[in-house]
Amino acid sequence: MSEGDATSGEAGGEGAGEGRAVFFVSDRTGITAETLGNTLLSQFEAVRFRRVTLPFVDSAERACAARERIDAEAERSGCRPLVFSTLVDPALRRVVASCRGVFLDFFDAFIQPVERELGMAYARAPGRMHGMADPARYAGRMDAVNFALATDDGAGVRHYGQADVILLGVSRCGKTPTSLYLALQFGVRAANYPLTADVLEGGVLPAALAPHRAALYGLTIAPERLAMLRAARHPDGGYAAISACRAEVRRAETLYREEAIAFLNTTAMSIEEIATTILQHRGLR
Amino acid sequence: MSEGDATSGEAGGEGAGEGRAVFFVSDRTGITAETLGNTLLSQFEAVRFRRVTLPFVDSAERACAARERIDAEAERSGCRPLVFSTLVDPALRRVVASCRGVFLDFFDAFIQPVERELGMAYARAPGRMHGMADPARYAGRMDAVNFALATDDGAGVRHYGQADVILLGVSRCGKTPTSLYLALQFGVRAANYPLTADVLEGGVLPAALAPHRAALYGLTIAPERLAMLRAARHPDGGYAAISACRAEVRRAETLYREEAIAFLNTTAMSIEEIATTILQHRGLR
Repeated sequence: MSEGDATSGEAGGEGAGEGRAVFFVSDRTGITAETLGNTLLSQFEAVRFRRVTLPFVDSAERACAARERIDAEAERSGCRPLVFSTLVDPALRRVVASCRGVFLDFFDAFIQPVERELGMAYARAPGRMHGMADPARYAGRMDAVNFALATDDGAGVRHYGQADVILLGVSRCGKTPTSLYLALQFGVRAANYPLTADVLEGGVLPAALAPHRAALYGLTIAPERLAMLRAARHPDGGYAAISACRAEVRRAETLYREEAIAFLNTTAMSIEEIATTILQHRGLR
Repeated sequence: MSEGDATSGEAGGEGAGEGRAVFFVSDRTGITAETLGNTLLSQFEAVRFRRVTLPFVDSAERACAARERIDAEAERSGCRPLVFSTLVDPALRRVVASCRGVFLDFFDAFIQPVERELGMAYARAPGRMHGMADPARYAGRMDAVNFALATDDGAGVRHYGQADVILLGVSRCGKTPTSLYLALQFGVRAANYPLTADVLEGGVLPAALAPHRAALYGLTIAPERLAMLRAARHPDGGYAAISACRAEVRRAETLYREEAIAFLNTTAMSIEEIATTILQHRGLR
């Protein structure tokens, strides 16, 4: 059925330059399937992938439709798609497993040893991971998001007594996205307070922070990286100048040391790495 | 070595009421290991689990320390801990695999079929998934976070031309956390605009939204759930009154219908479910 010639068929998806097809199949959001699949795919940098997520595959009809879509792609590209699945229902799993892709299901791989060890069968209830299965935990995460927004960038200091952690740092070192990630992913209440040029020239801990010393956690960053991040946002003016960045970072680190505030260099770190390092250091996980 | 008697040892962790020990072991953040393990554990609601994350296990020393910690727990509780691992390095994996827990490693389970299909060995580079392996994608997510904050709750309408989606809805229906999640998880630029009581009484689409009709997406919610969410935040006054919630929701849904704006009922949905449904409906994934 393909209009391509035999050579392009043999070369396969990634050889032909269009990339290997990858499907993430889930009965709910697809977030777990994407996390699992992408963790594996990130180990193959030389290969280009074309990703398709098929979420909410929660009926026999939708499972058949998913299989057909995968098979059509296999037919079209002449190459087996990779299929990462987190289908809770074994019947739906069997339908998609009969596709012409390489079918890798998370429950197939792991549920049996866990069942055996716990001495019981699993619930087969879809969507527990990223759904509302635990309303108290969910409400805690939403409260933490509201807390992070209400205490972003030095606002709402009157709420600092409720903070699990208060992040300090110069502008653009990663305070706000880290606070939001701590809230959304872990339900941790993170405030953040900017060390402005004015604060840093004074060289003393702002009075608003003094009563909350135990919750303070500093972020620092290489001045060169900081200058790059600032220039991307406000290219003109002194804000992104390397001299300003160097002076601010030096003063911030001096303040952390003088005040015995633990701090972390975020230069080469993602917000996920910053957030999990803070949780680890503070025993918040 | 245990001070407990044989009965409590036989009863095991979860029988004794303290919960079965679970370890998440990773060479980087532990986020994938937690996702993997918690997805499985969420299928066993009757069991209590005590979770410990051991991130940054990236040396032989740390792998040995992780194994010792797991073994100490097995000894203490008389019960095999569940160990969910995402260790990229096979040597470190072997160290932790020799522990006295039930060792379930993600790479052990899946990497071989993927290697076989792609015809190459995996990179064995830790931390690709939640690190900075893809700087452009990472920068896109951070830009999206800044965009969501700059356009939260009706602010920054001058930026609406750059929005992938503009969420509408009454106060407390989930606009802000959904926007932030879309940004952090998917790098999608989501603005949000509140349908206030004033706007809704007017019954017409605000002028600021008219040029961006294609990006609009409505959220709605059951008035009873809305009243509960509002009462948790501002228990007094008319804001949380069921009559006010009913009127606002009815008017919002009427506006969506009259203006032909697609909308979603978020009553029983988590932000992950709301976000992935929007991506699906809009083809943004």
